[in-house]
Amino acid sequence: MKLLEERIRKDGQVRPGNILKVDSFLNHQLDVGLLDEIGKEFYQRFKDKGINKILTIEASGIAIACMTARYFDAPVVFAKKAKSKNLDGDVFTSVVHSFTYGKDYNITLSKKFLGPQDRVLIVDDFLAIGKAMQGLLDVCRQANAQVCGIGVAIEKGFQSGGATLRDAGYDLASLAIVESMEDDGELIFREQ
Amino acid sequence: MKLLEERIRKDGQVRPGNILKVDSFLNHQLDVGLLDEIGKEFYQRFKDKGINKILTIEASGIAIACMTARYFDAPVVFAKKAKSKNLDGDVFTSVVHSFTYGKDYNITLSKKFLGPQDRVLIVDDFLAIGKAMQGLLDVCRQANAQVCGIGVAIEKGFQSGGATLRDAGYDLASLAIVESMEDDGELIFREQ
Repeated sequence: MKLLEERIRKDGQVRPGNILKVDSFLNHQLDVGLLDEIGKEFYQRFKDKGINKILTIEASGIAIACMTARYFDAPVVFAKKAKSKNLDGDVFTSVVHSFTYGKDYNITLSKKFLGPQDRVLIVDDFLAIGKAMQGLLDVCRQANAQVCGIGVAIEKGFQSGGATLRDAGYDLASLAIVESMEDDGELIFREQ
Repeated sequence: MKLLEERIRKDGQVRPGNILKVDSFLNHQLDVGLLDEIGKEFYQRFKDKGINKILTIEASGIAIACMTARYFDAPVVFAKKAKSKNLDGDVFTSVVHSFTYGKDYNITLSKKFLGPQDRVLIVDDFLAIGKAMQGLLDVCRQANAQVCGIGVAIEKGFQSGGATLRDAGYDLASLAIVESMEDDGELIFREQ
């Protein structure tokens, strides 16, 4: 998606340790017009899959999920990263390792909101090693929900998450794939 | 907002301890069509205020903020509840007490994304005692940003948050105000 690649080049910041900061438009401040274009692109890619639910994980995935769900006319459900007192006990859970925070955390999703009748599009802002995505796939397996597609805004193509998902047969759409990042800020995107 | 009140009556669940669960449409599973109507209503209430930024707090506030921001053609910025390694050190911070989790937590917001040039609409899904809202107002004070309005979907009118904000002179729009909740599930809304 050229619009997203251009925006990453313009406003993204490369930091040591393979960190790509896109917090001015994707995951702290949110450019809702851009998110709308991302949602429209996911709709173009997956509109023939009979999708009836958009699944993501808090927090920044929620923004992309909402803008995508408008096009599919489907509800969003988001996995939570901590168990609140307000959640019922009747939840699917999975353990995710966060490299950002350097620890494991649980994700939870109420059993009421995902089941065998669901044809799911999973969306998120980033895909790197893909630990959060594996947690969402685990939740879908527990729910016997069918994963019909995975859409991510930015894939770090030099990390293993995307290849793992494609090898497993998932229909993965990454709108921008960063092939390499140099410490001087140069970004190379994979041709798609 | 009649549409929201009717939806709360239909799908909300009253639990002991003044808990109103609306997780089937507002803060776990998300009815994006309803959120769009909420955003449209906030636009009607605040469209003459010159608002150029929508501020909220993760996680469920993000959904309402995005749908609201579409109408204002303004960016969203959301406060984070934990400091990530990926955030710059240059952040506004405030301490919030969570009654849901029974502890204090820090909220952070990058200084790059809020400043004296901003005319802010703060939005959130719930207003009860209003501790999270006070944290967001504190961040706006630190940023010298002007708070031009506050929009919440559901106010618990029997708790102090709404009265405190109105007494302080804030222009607060609560789309549904729950006046009382009975353990048998009966809900009474404030006439507006």
